[in-house]
Amino acid sequence: MMRYWWVNHNATWKQEISGGYLWSPQREKNARSTSYDNMRRIVPGDLIVSYAGQKNGHVGRATDTAVAAPKPAEFGERGSYWSNTGWYVPVSWIPLKAAVRHREFWDEIVPILPVRHSPLVSRTRKGNQKVYLAEVSKDVFDLIADRGGVEPSLIRQARGPSSDDAVRQLEDAAVQALLTDQDLASSVRNQLIAARVGQGNFRDAVLERERRCRVTGLSHEPLLVASHIKPWRSCATAIERLDGDNGLMLAPHIDRLFDRGFISFGDDGAVLTSQHLTDEILQALGCSNLRSFNAGPFREGQRAYLAYHRQHEFLDEAPREGSRRRKTASLVPLSG
Amino acid sequence: MMRYWWVNHNATWKQEISGGYLWSPQREKNARSTSYDNMRRIVPGDLIVSYAGQKNGHVGRATDTAVAAPKPAEFGERGSYWSNTGWYVPVSWIPLKAAVRHREFWDEIVPILPVRHSPLVSRTRKGNQKVYLAEVSKDVFDLIADRGGVEPSLIRQARGPSSDDAVRQLEDAAVQALLTDQDLASSVRNQLIAARVGQGNFRDAVLERERRCRVTGLSHEPLLVASHIKPWRSCATAIERLDGDNGLMLAPHIDRLFDRGFISFGDDGAVLTSQHLTDEILQALGCSNLRSFNAGPFREGQRAYLAYHRQHEFLDEAPREGSRRRKTASLVPLSG
Repeated sequence: MMRYWWVNHNATWKQEISGGYLWSPQREKNARSTSYDNMRRIVPGDLIVSYAGQKNGHVGRATDTAVAAPKPAEFGERGSYWSNTGWYVPVSWIPLKAAVRHREFWDEIVPILPVRHSPLVSRTRKGNQKVYLAEVSKDVFDLIADRGGVEPSLIRQARGPSSDDAVRQLEDAAVQALLTDQDLASSVRNQLIAARVGQGNFRDAVLERERRCRVTGLSHEPLLVASHIKPWRSCATAIERLDGDNGLMLAPHIDRLFDRGFISFGDDGAVLTSQHLTDEILQALGCSNLRSFNAGPFREGQRAYLAYHRQHEFLDEAPREGSRRRKTASLVPLSG
Repeated sequence: MMRYWWVNHNATWKQEISGGYLWSPQREKNARSTSYDNMRRIVPGDLIVSYAGQKNGHVGRATDTAVAAPKPAEFGERGSYWSNTGWYVPVSWIPLKAAVRHREFWDEIVPILPVRHSPLVSRTRKGNQKVYLAEVSKDVFDLIADRGGVEPSLIRQARGPSSDDAVRQLEDAAVQALLTDQDLASSVRNQLIAARVGQGNFRDAVLERERRCRVTGLSHEPLLVASHIKPWRSCATAIERLDGDNGLMLAPHIDRLFDRGFISFGDDGAVLTSQHLTDEILQALGCSNLRSFNAGPFREGQRAYLAYHRQHEFLDEAPREGSRRRKTASLVPLSG
């Protein structure tokens, strides 16, 4: 379902507009935040109004779902109190022909703003500093776009990079860092680089533990992907990047769902499905019964990595362990 | 099904043994060749006896199915008459404790060699120069391994790189060449590098033509892969690498099947399935009806690339156009 959003960029608006994205920390002082949770709800095609410096200067179109990414280096000192683990959403921004200062039409916009988690504060007539990303109605979006003189059809056609582009750039930078690290033995360097794409020693180490895709039952090695549980780019050490316990052998489509945070796993093997996994997607992928699927319990060594995946990669809130709704578990692999 | 093979390495045995692979051209003077077709039949786990210099010096275990790859650079002048387009199979080689000279036990081996396409010539008692790769019986393999003093269990456990490792190394080298090409505008260079992983302008150009996966019907963009028809590494020009007609939007598992030559397409949209696609694999992937599936006719511009894929990437012989067995075509996407 397509939604409309209002972003209060704060101090990093220049970076986000020129870079073509939204970025927020994942949590606020270890607590959940409506704004940051909203990042995970965005779907490609959602429309966004940008607010900074007491005016709306741009509108944009999200070009992908969120992906976990560290704080952009170009933020520099700005937001130094934010945690480094965040959500990144690529956005194709279009400048308004004339910036819209809402003080000039306050009476029009206030009645259509949301009551809770509003991006503007009635009392001060300024942006709400506690709100980074708020859901707004189509009316709010249309009002700003219309005042700003931007054709709605132009916005809907806006294309741009995907989250995969951003991930690739992060990974390429990490590979470059490895290539220029003089302290690294070349054999280790080669294994770390091979591990990024699930190859080399990492793949062998995962295959020792997992012989088949837990979800589909696929066991034909040439088709299986050695997928990191805690992503390669997020690993803190070489050991994490090469640890066989930090991997699963998955069929390519299940790897993709897992890698993009569309699914995760409970320690007991329950498949956790995100809000983005519609019936239409599941049916096209031949996984209609994925929501009630159990992939079998995980090893001790895998659980810390799975906890990371549930907390930082999964595009939904994982249910607390022990509070499972379903008690029955299917261990027969999915099949078409 | 596991098979046993005999390879006559000819002049490139040192490269193939030390590099851990088999390589052959795909065709002999534009004609099919039993040896070269055999390359496509290999499955991971197949066992191979190596013959060169009138003796068997190694046995090996195939660690993946074949993948299209150019003639290895390390061949140098050797095999300069071979076409540059070939099949590559990664093999984990184990040296025999003592080389086996078959002249010493000719009477034992001749009766168990195949009658047709035999790797040894009775008349000359030498290797058959017309045969690169021959299927042999388990008895032949066991005889050589036993005489050579190698434990069969050791061979079966031999692990090694995958075809993906080889492809990655080819691609990394091609990226390095782009990075050091001073004649290339940096914007073009960036687009070529992004296209390698189906990103950037290439993806946009494919999306303009193909909005959904022709096989599964999947249309959710974050999950679709922009897959080259003629592989990026095999493209002769920058234009081919960026051409939207040289791409399909595919679900990740269908992309994998297509990329590894397990499937291809006829111009009319018929899905061609290779000998490697067992019922077990199709069922695990939720694609049980893939063998009788039609993905809809292709555009004029896509057909030359598809012809390349059928001839050089597909791990089987494509039926001639117009000689289809099946007349009925299903255009409803596969579903679980």
